[in-house]
Amino acid sequence: MKTRLTEALGITCPVIQAPMAFAAGGALASAVSNAGGLGMIGGAYGDPEWINRQFDIAAGARVGCGLITWKLAKQPQLLDRVLARDPAALFLSFGDPEPFAPAIRDAGVPLICQVQTLRDARQALDCGADIIVAQGADAGGHGEARGTFALVPEIADEIARRNNKALLCAAGGIADGRGLAAAMMLGADAAVIGTRFWASHEALVHPRILDRALAATGDDTIRTKVVDVVRGYDWPGRYNGRVLRNSFVQKWHGSEDALKLEVGIEAAKWAAAQEAGNLDVATAFAGEGIGLIDTVLPASDILAVVMDGAQRILAAAGQNQQEAP
Amino acid sequence: MKTRLTEALGITCPVIQAPMAFAAGGALASAVSNAGGLGMIGGAYGDPEWINRQFDIAAGARVGCGLITWKLAKQPQLLDRVLARDPAALFLSFGDPEPFAPAIRDAGVPLICQVQTLRDARQALDCGADIIVAQGADAGGHGEARGTFALVPEIADEIARRNNKALLCAAGGIADGRGLAAAMMLGADAAVIGTRFWASHEALVHPRILDRALAATGDDTIRTKVVDVVRGYDWPGRYNGRVLRNSFVQKWHGSEDALKLEVGIEAAKWAAAQEAGNLDVATAFAGEGIGLIDTVLPASDILAVVMDGAQRILAAAGQNQQEAP
Ligand SMILES: Cc1cc2nc3c(=O)[nH]c(=O)nc-3n(C[C@H](O)[C@H](O)[C@H](O)COP(=O)(O)O)c2cc1C
Ligand SMILES: Cc1cc2nc3c(=O)[nH]c(=O)nc-3n(C[C@H](O)[C@H](O)[C@H](O)COP(=O)(O)O)c2cc1C
Repeated sequence: MKTRLTEALGITCPVIQAPMAFAAGGALASAVSNAGGLGMIGGAYGDPEWINRQFDIAAGARVGCGLITWKLAKQPQLLDRVLARDPAALFLSFGDPEPFAPAIRDAGVPLICQVQTLRDARQALDCGADIIVAQGADAGGHGEARGTFALVPEIADEIARRNNKALLCAAGGIADGRGLAAAMMLGADAAVIGTRFWASHEALVHPRILDRALAATGDDTIRTKVVDVVRGYDWPGRYNGRVLRNSFVQKWHGSEDALKLEVGIEAAKWAAAQEAGNLDVATAFAGEGIGLIDTVLPASDILAVVMDGAQRILAAAGQNQQEAP
Repeated sequence: MKTRLTEALGITCPVIQAPMAFAAGGALASAVSNAGGLGMIGGAYGDPEWINRQFDIAAGARVGCGLITWKLAKQPQLLDRVLARDPAALFLSFGDPEPFAPAIRDAGVPLICQVQTLRDARQALDCGADIIVAQGADAGGHGEARGTFALVPEIADEIARRNNKALLCAAGGIADGRGLAAAMMLGADAAVIGTRFWASHEALVHPRILDRALAATGDDTIRTKVVDVVRGYDWPGRYNGRVLRNSFVQKWHGSEDALKLEVGIEAAKWAAAQEAGNLDVATAFAGEGIGLIDTVLPASDILAVVMDGAQRILAAAGQNQQEAP
C-alpha cells in the first residue's frame, strides 16, 4: 500500500503510531517500526532520562519521538538531546513549532507537526513542516474541538493551494481498516493511530485500565480538563483531553475551579488510584475509537489487521465503480 | 453508484439532503430528488401551514420530511398531517422516536432516525428504524459531541451484531466527493448532507449570510446554545448547535445565564438582525464543512459534483490496490 508518505519515509505501511505520553515507549515504537509502520516514542512532557531509556529499548529500530511543544519551549535544550538519538522523525504537537523547526531541519530529521485547526496547519506549513497531522477532536489524548472528518480535506486543500510538498496524515478515530481507508479518501497520505495501539501488548498501560477500556463504547469518552487540573499540568487554555468517563471525571468535569481549591487532597487520591489501577478515580486517555476495539493485541497484529482491512475495502470500492456503467 | 440504500429507496445517488430548519423548503427538496438523491423538507419545529406549502411547492417530486422529535412530542397530531402528504420518508431527530414509529410504519413510510450516540442508535433500532443516520458533532445545526469519524463504524458494527436490516447514513462534515467516499469506507450506505445544500440556489437563506459563510473556514464554526437561548427555544440540555462565529456568539457563548437575564432586548436585536441579514448579530447554522465550500450552486450541480468526485476517487483507490503486488 504505497503512498507518498511510505515512499518519503521508506516504510511499507501508511501508518504512524502516535507518540502517546507514558504509554508509548521503545517497545511499542520498535514493534510498529519493525512491522512496517513508523513507531514513535511518546516523549511528551520531556523527561530526558525516560526518553533515553526508551531509545535504548528500541535499539536497532528506526523510531521517531514526539514532544509537547509548549513544554519543550520551557526546556528548549532537550531538543538537541533528542536529536542526538537520531530519531526517524520529530513529532511536535500543541504549540508553535517555529522556534524548533530550524534545528530539526538542520539535523536532517523530518518534522511532523500535529495540528488541530486550519490556522495551526498554516503556521506549521509556514515553518516548513514535512508532514502535517490533522488531528480531530475524535482523538484520544489532548486536542481541540474540530472533527477529523472535515479538518483533513480542508487542510489537504490548503496544502494543494500552496503547492506545498508537505504530506498529510489524519488522526482521531482511526482504529481499523475502515478508518485508514476513509482517511485516504479524505486526502490523507497516511493515518496517525493512537488509541488502537494504546490497547496493545507493548503499550505501557495498567492491565486493569485496559480491561475496563475494552468494555467502553465511544459514548463513554469525554473531552475534559480535569485530568490536567488534578495533575497540576499547565496546559494552554485551548486544549483539553479525551478520556474515559468515570466517577472522578463525572464529579469534577464542569467544576474545575472547585477542583483547584481541593487539588491537594484530590491529587493524592488520583495518584494513588493511578498506581493501583483503581478505575473509578484513575483516568485513561482514550479516543472515541475505543468503541471499535475489543481485544488487546500485539502491535504487529494491529498493524496487519488495519492494513488488511483497508486494502480489502479499497479494492472492493474500486471494483464496484468498475462494474457501474 | 448503487448501494443498498439507493436500491431500497429507488433513487440513483446515495445522498439524502438534510431536512434543515427554515432553509430546506420544497424547492430544495424537489431539486435534490429530481437530480437523483432524496430531498427532504425541513419540517423542524412543525409549523403545519409552512410544511403544507413546501409539499405543494415540491409537487410532483418524491420528497421526505424531517421533524424535531422533542417538538413533535408536544404536538403529536402533526404526524398524521405530515403522513397525509405521502412523504418519501419521515426523518426524526433529537428525541425518542418510539412513540411515533408505529404510525409511520403503518403508513408504509420509511422511518429515518438521526442519532448522535451509540445509545441513541440502539434505541432507534429497537423501535424499528429503517435507516439510521449517524450524525457527528462536525455537522451544522443541532447535535451532540461525538465525531462523525468513529461514530459511523461503531453504529455499523452494532447493526451488524444485531443482524438488523437497517441501512446506515453518515452525517456531519460531508461536503464533497471525498466525504461521500470516506463515509462509504466507514460503513455507511449513503451520506446525509446539510451545509453543502444550505449553500445552494434553492435553499431559503439570506444572500448576505451566504456571502459571509463562503468566506469562513471550518475554524470559524462553533457549537453553542446561545441561539436557542435568544430564540427562547426549549432544547433538551444535551444538544447544542453548530453556527458560524460572530460578535453575538463571541459575546454570549459561555455566558448563557447572563443572556437569559437580558433575553428580551437581545431577542429583539437578534430578530431584527436576522431579518436584515446583519451578520454581526444574525446567526447561521453551518457545519465544519463550510471550509470546503466556496460557491453557491444549484442543488443539482452540487449533487453532480459530489457524485463525480466520489466515483473518481473510489475508482482510483481500487486501481491502486490492483496494481499492488
Ligand atoms: C493515551 C494517549 C496519550 C497521548 N499522548 C500524546 C502526547 O503526549 N503527545 C501528542 O502529541 N499526542 C498525544 N496523544 C494524541 C495522539 O498524538 C493522536 O492524535 C491520537 O491518539 C489519535 O487519535 P486516536 O487516539 O483516535 O487514534 C495521545 C493519545 C492517547 C490515546
Ligand atoms: C442550517 C441547518 C439546519 C438544520 N436543521 C435541522 C433540523 O431542523 N432537523 C434536523 O434533524 N437536522 C437539522 N440539521 C442537521 C442536519 O440534519 C445534518 O445532520 C447536518 O446538516 C449534516 O452535517 P453537515 O451540515 O456537515 O452536512 C440542520 C443543519 C443545518 C446546516
